[in-house]
Amino acid sequence: MSPGGKSAAASNPGWHAHAGPRGALEPLGGGVTAVPGVRAAGRAVGLRASGKPDLALVDCGEPVPVGLVQTRNQVAAAPVRVSAAHAADGRARAVLLNSGSANACTGEAGESLARASADWTADALEANAADVLVCSTGVIGVPIREDVLCAGVPTVAAALATDGGTDAAGAILTTDTVAKEAAVSVTDDEGRTGIVGGMGKGVGMLAPGLATMLAVVTTDVPLDAEAAQRVLDRAVARTFNRITVDGCMSTNDAVVLLARGGATDPPPEAVVADAVEHVCGDLAEQMVRDGEGVGHVVHLTVTGARTEEEAADVGRAVADSVLFRTAIAGGDPNWGRVVAAVGAGPVAIEPDRLSVRFGDVTVCEHGAAAAFDRAAAEAALSGADVTVEVGLGLGEARATLLTSDLTHEYVTINADYTT
Amino acid sequence: MSPGGKSAAASNPGWHAHAGPRGALEPLGGGVTAVPGVRAAGRAVGLRASGKPDLALVDCGEPVPVGLVQTRNQVAAAPVRVSAAHAADGRARAVLLNSGSANACTGEAGESLARASADWTADALEANAADVLVCSTGVIGVPIREDVLCAGVPTVAAALATDGGTDAAGAILTTDTVAKEAAVSVTDDEGRTGIVGGMGKGVGMLAPGLATMLAVVTTDVPLDAEAAQRVLDRAVARTFNRITVDGCMSTNDAVVLLARGGATDPPPEAVVADAVEHVCGDLAEQMVRDGEGVGHVVHLTVTGARTEEEAADVGRAVADSVLFRTAIAGGDPNWGRVVAAVGAGPVAIEPDRLSVRFGDVTVCEHGAAAAFDRAAAEAALSGADVTVEVGLGLGEARATLLTSDLTHEYVTINADYTT
Repeated sequence: MSPGGKSAAASNPGWHAHAGPRGALEPLGGGVTAVPGVRAAGRAVGLRASGKPDLALVDCGEPVPVGLVQTRNQVAAAPVRVSAAHAADGRARAVLLNSGSANACTGEAGESLARASADWTADALEANAADVLVCSTGVIGVPIREDVLCAGVPTVAAALATDGGTDAAGAILTTDTVAKEAAVSVTDDEGRTGIVGGMGKGVGMLAPGLATMLAVVTTDVPLDAEAAQRVLDRAVARTFNRITVDGCMSTNDAVVLLARGGATDPPPEAVVADAVEHVCGDLAEQMVRDGEGVGHVVHLTVTGARTEEEAADVGRAVADSVLFRTAIAGGDPNWGRVVAAVGAGPVAIEPDRLSVRFGDVTVCEHGAAAAFDRAAAEAALSGADVTVEVGLGLGEARATLLTSDLTHEYVTINADYTT
Repeated sequence: MSPGGKSAAASNPGWHAHAGPRGALEPLGGGVTAVPGVRAAGRAVGLRASGKPDLALVDCGEPVPVGLVQTRNQVAAAPVRVSAAHAADGRARAVLLNSGSANACTGEAGESLARASADWTADALEANAADVLVCSTGVIGVPIREDVLCAGVPTVAAALATDGGTDAAGAILTTDTVAKEAAVSVTDDEGRTGIVGGMGKGVGMLAPGLATMLAVVTTDVPLDAEAAQRVLDRAVARTFNRITVDGCMSTNDAVVLLARGGATDPPPEAVVADAVEHVCGDLAEQMVRDGEGVGHVVHLTVTGARTEEEAADVGRAVADSVLFRTAIAGGDPNWGRVVAAVGAGPVAIEPDRLSVRFGDVTVCEHGAAAAFDRAAAEAALSGADVTVEVGLGLGEARATLLTSDLTHEYVTINADYTT
């Protein structure tokens, strides 16, 4: 458990942004249903043995432009393939999400079930199945019980409500301990305003490209399908692709942006893009804070890179080092593990230019030990949130990743997940 | 601690070989000094605060052809750079190895000290400094105490003995719990015979390319420098590059092959190459068995690959998955984590052809759950040694890696290493 306790609140949802967002943001409640015209629901229909909520539905009421980013894992789950096909025309109306099973590595039966679940949802909504996306999360290789899901879809559809976002967010959790929602209104300099809402889940198999996670984001700002994809791609690159809990890429990752539209005087794409990035960043930070066994949240910034992409790549090399992450768990200012991870990473560096800071304490400069106060360095690693900065001395670009330590609790959780 | 207790003995030192070695092998004692004409020593000279042995020297008595494989980490330690320079002419006489400090990220002073230590060794041996290689292991960024090392070199040189291999092996340990030695005589079909001896260390920052490790191998079979390098490259690719404890590449890895020569009727290169691979494989297995916090040693075989290299790459993707490794720690037959790691890895696969076996129990076939007895699968993961086989269904090539689980003890050891 985190020293500060777990919280769904993101302390610094702008961690991913180098400059402030265009447009003034005001927080809203309601998650995905903060956007007018979007209804959602979450119910316990019997997919999880625990009896916890396990089926969620988000419905825009009509087909709308959609953006979709999915896992790049070659072992993609059935719902990943079905959703890709259904979103290929750039439009979708609803997203059905279940916990309790990933419906991955379930063969032809799993593929049929994923398609059938879209059919059942379409029947309940009087919609077209091709406008329904499906997402699953849970254990790989465990079939979803078809009769339970078939009976559950009308139940959750009947529960759809304009304030159902929080229920939906609560029905997609696995080992998550808190539901994850975010929503903002955004107003630009000319008084034009829009709303972006979102929900997400993900606490294990969390890694860039993508983190193991599901998220649904809605907006009342009209965007065509190309714009929705463009906005989502950028937001994912800077948020969900910059968090990692264990460096493992899952079979089921999906982020959906439903451009519901309806705003009467909406801001332009650049403004809503920053708001979408903000909501995604908020959800991403909540995921890391609720990560399995997380004791410390690490704000890892790489500076002095030639490009932002290289900065992020160096950050991932450090964040995926189990030696770095166990050192953070122990509050041990072992900066050698940071530079070793950088040197073993994919980006060409100049070892003599490397620097490392823990909080405000410079522990390594010019690639060698700095004269530093060990007690101060240990103190910098003692809080629930710690900052680590790696300087490359090669350029002006930078990137921040959020990661976590590797603790005893993580091992306990993951040594016995399926049983 | 391993369920079966830690042991320096390798149960199956041929794990890396697809066919048996050319030539009959007989185990010998003595490690590096199993080879006539090689002397070695290990002493406690005060580099480690614990007072444990911390300085080792291996001496061939005259410059001999040398093969050298070193870390590819861009943040290479000073001794790595100095040894590369001294071995550039293909000849070396002696190797000085210290524990207590990696002499990495120690700036100009560290580089000067590495060179000076070769000078001191040369003085003590009446040799040329350019024929002395130097290796260091320990914490990164901690300077070696120059006065202590300067005084220690003559001490260890004075202790050189023809039966000093075991002392030397004991002086290069860090968090290793047992010294690691191996030696064999090899005799081919025509009665020609040679000897290969070796010692090594390495239990953390253990990953392919290279594992974080030091090893010195000696042979009385005459090889020129090109042959020594060729023999060593192949052996390392199949042994030290196929083990991983934590996926982290260190700053200090080095493997040295000293072709001392002297055998009166030596076998040809192909025979000694297999014997060198055997000794390296034995040392590599000892490293994994003594790995930090290892509870289970995992014999991970990838079959049905297009090439041996792709088989090894798939194996590394699985072995580096912390989710796979925590599942093994818990004896949890969560095969979904295996296929997820394969799918996220660098090799193009056909998901529908994947199979996974834990011991003799097939848990996944055709990319989906097999009908299997859970108790039998758990039993297959319960021993100190477990076997995991991943079938790709793409070709005939295969490779075996040795890795380990990720345990609470690993976290404990690594959360507080420098303090």
